[in-house]
Amino acid sequence: MRIRIHHITLCPGTEGEGSIPFIENAEVQIDANRIVYAGTSVSAPQFTADESMDGEGCLCMPGMVNLHTHTPMTYLRSVGADLVLSDWLNKAIFPLEKQWDADLIRSATNLGCMEMLRFGTTSFNDMYFYTDVMSQAVEQNGMRAMLGHGIVDFDESCRDMVEGVEMAEKWNHAANDRIRFSLAPHSEGATTPKLLARVTETAKKMGLPIHIHVSETEADVKGCWKRHGKTPPAFLEEIGLLDSPVIAAHCVWCDERDITILQKHGVTIAHNPISNLKLASGVAPISRMLKKQCKVAIGTDGVASNNNLNLWEELKLMPMLQKGVTLDPTVVTPAQTLAAATSVGAKALGYNDLGMLKAGYLADLILLDLNKPHMNPQIDLESNLIYSAQGSDVRLTMVDGKVLYRDGRFTTLDRDTLLAQAREGAQTMRRRLDSVQA
Amino acid sequence: MRIRIHHITLCPGTEGEGSIPFIENAEVQIDANRIVYAGTSVSAPQFTADESMDGEGCLCMPGMVNLHTHTPMTYLRSVGADLVLSDWLNKAIFPLEKQWDADLIRSATNLGCMEMLRFGTTSFNDMYFYTDVMSQAVEQNGMRAMLGHGIVDFDESCRDMVEGVEMAEKWNHAANDRIRFSLAPHSEGATTPKLLARVTETAKKMGLPIHIHVSETEADVKGCWKRHGKTPPAFLEEIGLLDSPVIAAHCVWCDERDITILQKHGVTIAHNPISNLKLASGVAPISRMLKKQCKVAIGTDGVASNNNLNLWEELKLMPMLQKGVTLDPTVVTPAQTLAAATSVGAKALGYNDLGMLKAGYLADLILLDLNKPHMNPQIDLESNLIYSAQGSDVRLTMVDGKVLYRDGRFTTLDRDTLLAQAREGAQTMRRRLDSVQA
Repeated sequence: MRIRIHHITLCPGTEGEGSIPFIENAEVQIDANRIVYAGTSVSAPQFTADESMDGEGCLCMPGMVNLHTHTPMTYLRSVGADLVLSDWLNKAIFPLEKQWDADLIRSATNLGCMEMLRFGTTSFNDMYFYTDVMSQAVEQNGMRAMLGHGIVDFDESCRDMVEGVEMAEKWNHAANDRIRFSLAPHSEGATTPKLLARVTETAKKMGLPIHIHVSETEADVKGCWKRHGKTPPAFLEEIGLLDSPVIAAHCVWCDERDITILQKHGVTIAHNPISNLKLASGVAPISRMLKKQCKVAIGTDGVASNNNLNLWEELKLMPMLQKGVTLDPTVVTPAQTLAAATSVGAKALGYNDLGMLKAGYLADLILLDLNKPHMNPQIDLESNLIYSAQGSDVRLTMVDGKVLYRDGRFTTLDRDTLLAQAREGAQTMRRRLDSVQA
Repeated sequence: MRIRIHHITLCPGTEGEGSIPFIENAEVQIDANRIVYAGTSVSAPQFTADESMDGEGCLCMPGMVNLHTHTPMTYLRSVGADLVLSDWLNKAIFPLEKQWDADLIRSATNLGCMEMLRFGTTSFNDMYFYTDVMSQAVEQNGMRAMLGHGIVDFDESCRDMVEGVEMAEKWNHAANDRIRFSLAPHSEGATTPKLLARVTETAKKMGLPIHIHVSETEADVKGCWKRHGKTPPAFLEEIGLLDSPVIAAHCVWCDERDITILQKHGVTIAHNPISNLKLASGVAPISRMLKKQCKVAIGTDGVASNNNLNLWEELKLMPMLQKGVTLDPTVVTPAQTLAAATSVGAKALGYNDLGMLKAGYLADLILLDLNKPHMNPQIDLESNLIYSAQGSDVRLTMVDGKVLYRDGRFTTLDRDTLLAQAREGAQTMRRRLDSVQA
């Protein structure tokens, strides 16, 4: 399939500092799952398209990467809202998570993917259970995902670890390489040093990245000090875990030394500003991390700690929050923010050809409607994009060259069925929970 | 006109603590500009409607009140983003504001109103210039507004004050009482004690509320200490200004004594969380204010310091931010947040029959689409409403019994014309600015 999207304003994306270069009267040419041209129409090569899409009034930009989530938690939306963390986990989330089965996971995953596609997210990095079923769902719904079987284990036998490796062997690079796998030990606090050593070794042997929660709460850091006499980043460095490519979620309670460690090892920090506020974890020192040249990407975290999967909310909040808490309005630029939502995340998923719109890159892109009251006037389109745009402005979402969402319709997912399943599924889990608690 | 909206889930609104009572299978009956019934359909009285609207799958809730904005600043969207406050004001905002004329103000006001209506805001409290033109625009576009002619003056003659009083005399209670007026001295720092004394006296005489910026930045407080040996709230109390009904915007840098003063005088705090972050002013101590029984409402502030007029972003951020900075996830409930966006603001505008959906109240309401992926499942609809909903979920906005927005169409405003005017208007202002600076 050869697709041409023309009459667009092109946002090719950005990799770091500097402003975002927009190109007027542009077009993108796509052959199968790759971009063959992205630039002005006037200098575009001849291209015979099977389908031509008129993007009049739209901005075409890279699809967004949600670098930290637990997708099936869509079914736990609003569960335990406004509780303290220990009650949230022990009285609400953990008991409900014991009630999962494969069917529930499949429909909850698809509901989450539907929400992400609608809001212009094309890839996500996930840590959860039932990764076999999740992989099947992603294979069919067309999204790009890195999945990691969550390893929460203090046991020598370590069933989670065995299953995580099995799933990685089965699914890594599947579905035209849309599916990749990580090893995903939950955190220093929810595992043993022995297990983390095994993860480190296995990740190196299998060439897998590691996805782990790091210094999310003050308690995480205090616990690590008590157990190991150092902070989580220092401990993970010591055991060699940071020698693999690592996606470290949260990193809220990081001091200057931690930041230096994360930078030195090229760790990608998955920043989840809404989750960190909602669970009262705090505000990550993102502006300092960026100043020290750390890799910072953004994520929503699971729905239960957010309460949706609209990455545009993080896109606005990441710079706003840093300006507000540092009392410096110049920190965190729109370009750094866009990079955090696109190219930095794409690289962390292990792709060198994803996260920007240019020839040779994978065709993961979105069209954003600029003809909205809140997007005008366009004195500074870069600022409008980061500070004014809404997830609902997304008109088209394409992954791997295939249109998965367009103007209210999903091509691989059935909206009415999924909403009905969500209502039914949530009731099922509630009933099971009631019977367990009774 | 008699309108019946049925098949809805009703959110009658809330005035403070406690959870939000939703009513299933409900309806609202409207006669002219008033609600005559809001409750279950099964116990609804007979009602002959001119128009019956099927609200299947929708939540019907009070229209929202944006308690602090400068509406025409829509034309300054993104201007001076990421600059330090003094540069933002002196190099970007103030020079452009000198370029206004009546036509620009009219279209910029209407663009802002269009944006507010699309996102479910039915009333707004404004401080700006050209309030005659703004009143005409609001009279015609059908919104509800309290306007105040901004008084920035160190001069004895005080032209702003004279004009503010004239406009209040001309427009207060106009347009079926949809338009009301305040006196709007900009702030302690941008006026003189003499002028504030005159505002205080005039407000009492005319029975007008006062709209003023209070302790927005640390510099505001330091300046006031230097000038008067006390904080802005203490100074405003001393000169008697707080004896009128007062809407105090921001109140970011308030200590416990300030909070006590604001509470004692029944001041309504207009909290603008996004603006306070974007301009790096800080985070207002809202959870402490609520604990001390202060009246807290929310606003967007002007577009240039936000970068849009979607009050749903404030609705989510107000509780999130307080949880995050206090490290306590239990502070600021959904009910307190909804009240801040509806009933508290409505009362601050001087209405005793606005901000909730019940018999006898003014018919300012919205319909919100619940059949969206991000609004399901609905295990806790109250949390979904505050933490998951999007401004774009609004399907219908009614003010004073008239439908002003429905499913993408505005009934009193022409979208294409306003977007074209916005593009042209912003260019006009830029050109004038360039020619002045040349």
